[in-house]
Amino acid sequence: MQRYFSKNKTQNEFILNDDDVRHITRVMRMKDNDEIIVVFENTPYLCCLEDVNQNLKIKIKNELEKKDFGIPEIVLIIPLLKEQKMDLILQKSTELGVNKIIPYLAEHSIIKLKDGNSDKKLERWGKIVKEASEQSHRDCIPVITDILKFDEIKKLEGLNLICSTREKNKNIKNVFTSNKKCAKINLVIGPEGGLSKKEETELIESHFIPVTLGNRIMRVETVPLFIMSIVNYEFMEWF
Amino acid sequence: MQRYFSKNKTQNEFILNDDDVRHITRVMRMKDNDEIIVVFENTPYLCCLEDVNQNLKIKIKNELEKKDFGIPEIVLIIPLLKEQKMDLILQKSTELGVNKIIPYLAEHSIIKLKDGNSDKKLERWGKIVKEASEQSHRDCIPVITDILKFDEIKKLEGLNLICSTREKNKNIKNVFTSNKKCAKINLVIGPEGGLSKKEETELIESHFIPVTLGNRIMRVETVPLFIMSIVNYEFMEWF
Repeated sequence: MQRYFSKNKTQNEFILNDDDVRHITRVMRMKDNDEIIVVFENTPYLCCLEDVNQNLKIKIKNELEKKDFGIPEIVLIIPLLKEQKMDLILQKSTELGVNKIIPYLAEHSIIKLKDGNSDKKLERWGKIVKEASEQSHRDCIPVITDILKFDEIKKLEGLNLICSTREKNKNIKNVFTSNKKCAKINLVIGPEGGLSKKEETELIESHFIPVTLGNRIMRVETVPLFIMSIVNYEFMEWF
Repeated sequence: MQRYFSKNKTQNEFILNDDDVRHITRVMRMKDNDEIIVVFENTPYLCCLEDVNQNLKIKIKNELEKKDFGIPEIVLIIPLLKEQKMDLILQKSTELGVNKIIPYLAEHSIIKLKDGNSDKKLERWGKIVKEASEQSHRDCIPVITDILKFDEIKKLEGLNLICSTREKNKNIKNVFTSNKKCAKINLVIGPEGGLSKKEETELIESHFIPVTLGNRIMRVETVPLFIMSIVNYEFMEWF
């Protein structure tokens, strides 16, 4: 069933944004009495459409059960990358259940930030994760924070990991299996050129642990997809 | 170090195709005595360039050690999908170590095959997996077979799995952990609309096991990336 996220509610109706209304009426061509799911404050509701052709109303029928995957809260800390790579990361990591994405400026980032540029990017990214959340039937949209400077990353709390390319680090399987009860994992991913030695040292001094993902050589945009996949595999409550 | 695949060898030189020669001379602007790695018959060799500006020669210096990830041979059986999705699957699953890709025509495939169309597709796909193999420093390029009819899939031998959306199947973690010694895994992925009931039944009758990948709702092109990631995670010989 089609799913939309709403930020506005009256007593027994939800209000959707213009894009979603257009999607219901023009793209999906829904009719009166068709049902949709609307997620409001991380809770899904079964709803019924009324007066689709004139003045669409979305009547609340009943609350639905939330999904619980039993996996820790996952925060991906991603360097600024070219648009196509960023879009892929946002869409796929949303499908795979990421909770928060923190874009940051790395020393070796190819992409630089121009004035005013950042608001446009955040708006674009917000749309991508909202659509991906709807498509993958999530109960919440991942939070995308403002673009942080490197120094601000160091303050994060949780199981703090750096996906490193340097040798002789701990490996990710070992770290995951020995932290099965952790509530939150922050994962720093480096840019194309890797983190600078200075950046990596500073993170380690702030209690981040460098971990290796194995011997495969992956493009930077593949790393978050790999990580989100194995997080699900390792932590999900399989029946 | 830059890596290229060669199919031709003289006693002490490799011969590369025109695209690769152009890449060395025009894109990378390499010079005499620069070193590259050339992979020939799944074995990597350290090589040295001579006469780059006139008549490029690629002299063999010595054989290098092959990488062994210790994971089973992975065959992905992928329905025909739109170009962009197919490209993503080919590139990413190559990075993550797929051995063979079998494209097939599913009952619910949106993409239909026109006469002569298939050769063009195979040529395009071949280029993508070759480039991805070079970039991810692989010792072999994944094989892409001709586009198979559904009936031909049924003859595959190995641990045969169907990534199914139907409920109450075995789960993939369970199947992987109880088959740690298997040499070859064939994974059938359904198209956007899923396999038809008839197709799934026929595969089960041919000893394919339907497995669930968990409760996440993934786009079809995300499934191979998820699977390749967890195969590495589960089977790789972590130190």
